[in-house]
Amino acid sequence: MAEFDLIAHIAARAVRRADVALSIGDDAAVLQPRPGEQLVACCDTLNVGVHFPHDAEAADIGWKSLAVNLSDLAAMGATPAWALLSLSLPRADTEFVSGFMEGFAALADSAGVALVGGDTTSGPLAITVTALGWVPHGLALLRSGAKVGDVVCVSGTLGDAAAALHLYQHGARCEAPAQTALRARMARPGPRLDLGVALRGVAHAAIDVSDGLLADLAHVARASGVGIELDAACLPASNALRSVFDGDDCRRFMAIGGDDYELAFTLTAAAFETLCQTWDRQTLPITRIGRVVEGSGVVLRDAEGQVIDYGRAGWEHFAGAGP
Amino acid sequence: MAEFDLIAHIAARAVRRADVALSIGDDAAVLQPRPGEQLVACCDTLNVGVHFPHDAEAADIGWKSLAVNLSDLAAMGATPAWALLSLSLPRADTEFVSGFMEGFAALADSAGVALVGGDTTSGPLAITVTALGWVPHGLALLRSGAKVGDVVCVSGTLGDAAAALHLYQHGARCEAPAQTALRARMARPGPRLDLGVALRGVAHAAIDVSDGLLADLAHVARASGVGIELDAACLPASNALRSVFDGDDCRRFMAIGGDDYELAFTLTAAAFETLCQTWDRQTLPITRIGRVVEGSGVVLRDAEGQVIDYGRAGWEHFAGAGP
Repeated sequence: MAEFDLIAHIAARAVRRADVALSIGDDAAVLQPRPGEQLVACCDTLNVGVHFPHDAEAADIGWKSLAVNLSDLAAMGATPAWALLSLSLPRADTEFVSGFMEGFAALADSAGVALVGGDTTSGPLAITVTALGWVPHGLALLRSGAKVGDVVCVSGTLGDAAAALHLYQHGARCEAPAQTALRARMARPGPRLDLGVALRGVAHAAIDVSDGLLADLAHVARASGVGIELDAACLPASNALRSVFDGDDCRRFMAIGGDDYELAFTLTAAAFETLCQTWDRQTLPITRIGRVVEGSGVVLRDAEGQVIDYGRAGWEHFAGAGP
Repeated sequence: MAEFDLIAHIAARAVRRADVALSIGDDAAVLQPRPGEQLVACCDTLNVGVHFPHDAEAADIGWKSLAVNLSDLAAMGATPAWALLSLSLPRADTEFVSGFMEGFAALADSAGVALVGGDTTSGPLAITVTALGWVPHGLALLRSGAKVGDVVCVSGTLGDAAAALHLYQHGARCEAPAQTALRARMARPGPRLDLGVALRGVAHAAIDVSDGLLADLAHVARASGVGIELDAACLPASNALRSVFDGDDCRRFMAIGGDDYELAFTLTAAAFETLCQTWDRQTLPITRIGRVVEGSGVVLRDAEGQVIDYGRAGWEHFAGAGP
């Protein structure tokens, strides 16, 4: 399969949207802006052997390459509209591209995202996705808005993806239901787009948990010029995580494990109460896990108030630290 | 240098624009659309060993990674505004990043492009740039608008970049002025942004010459449902190209060499005459090289009207063909 066949194969899977004036097939896409809204743009790369193992399922790679970008839009409170996909492949591999596009399209369909352009080229397996979305003027959720006195919350459950990676790296191939559930969190994270929209004008600050809760909230603390205190006992664990790991391991995965793609956010206690009444917590739990204080940095405390120190926490490229 | 230092280094080089509400440092950029205009978006990846040699200058790689994308915007008649940069590096290499950003920023400055976001990650050296720009509603230049009777034109000179690559691949290290000039065309192509804007409402179809003139005009012919006839004697060669290669080699480089990033476009003969009176041809020549005819495909003829057949021409990934 040559480059132009690959492009046709990819184009055939693209969602149609009325705001796409010109899609794949020209030098660039032509897109219709949304009146009164601001454009939100991000891009993230996934490299084989770094962001996913060599034996990862093509469909999972396709899903995740879009998911990590939609998660960034969710953390801004943006509604996604379009994506561009750059795919580097060692060889023209129809089976891989077909599987990849199946996973990519499954998420694009459910999120209403049109694939409007990109690039296919030869090179080591790598995927870069650019996601474009819209947010009403002035309502983007920033990292820099946290206020002293805010409560700190997180969606869903934490640590599942890191636990799945740990099991994979230690050769656990058991397919017990709990392990399958953990693996699904790693392979097919669900960007919290609806919650991001619900937090517009409600949250003071937001970020998605990609590097690990402590590391990501440290970005919020730094950008906002505040400190954050977290209660370890409040961190939300899935039943799957609890069933496979003991309490200390669970806590560690929740605190410093990356790749969860939940939203962490701060808001007033009153706004949190109101949100709890309107947000469907059955579909996606939201949990109060701490508070914004004067000072700097993020501190995690156990039930006795003792500080739990994981050292330099969170994933950072070129530093070699991982969960 | 860790990931966040790299990001700071990159952010420090970014051009400021009033339409950037939020730049590097949050989950995504927030950008102000331009009333009455449409968004134009593209992304292209450069991989080491595929798009540039292992010993390429970091600054040239930085320049070219943006240039190839701005060239796509130029071919749409768009004015560039913003870029996102995803940089995969085998190791945190301050010297490389510094050189890379110097070249990237030199072009971004001159084109008024603000770098607003992206990603840095570990992996084989690879660069993906997403370029975003604006075009007045309905005025984007498409590949599909060529009309029978149009004249076919090209900007600048052709074949220089392919000739430089040929010299490099054959070990020519001579630094005669002509060779230096050819190499500059390969290393630092200049996107034809001003010409793209001048062609709005004037050209019927446009494309940038990245895969090679015959291959790229074949896209125009296919998209427009027409044929294209080119006169080999009219193809514009630089003095540098003529001084290093004989006539047959020059013609081959001009016809099927890639990486020129000139604009090829079609328009009425009357529109071409008008354009010649208003466009500064001293700064950037525009040359009539052929005509749009009924039929399909692209035919190149010599001065006697004989067809010159280069076989399957033009660069295509996964097919192994190159100049």
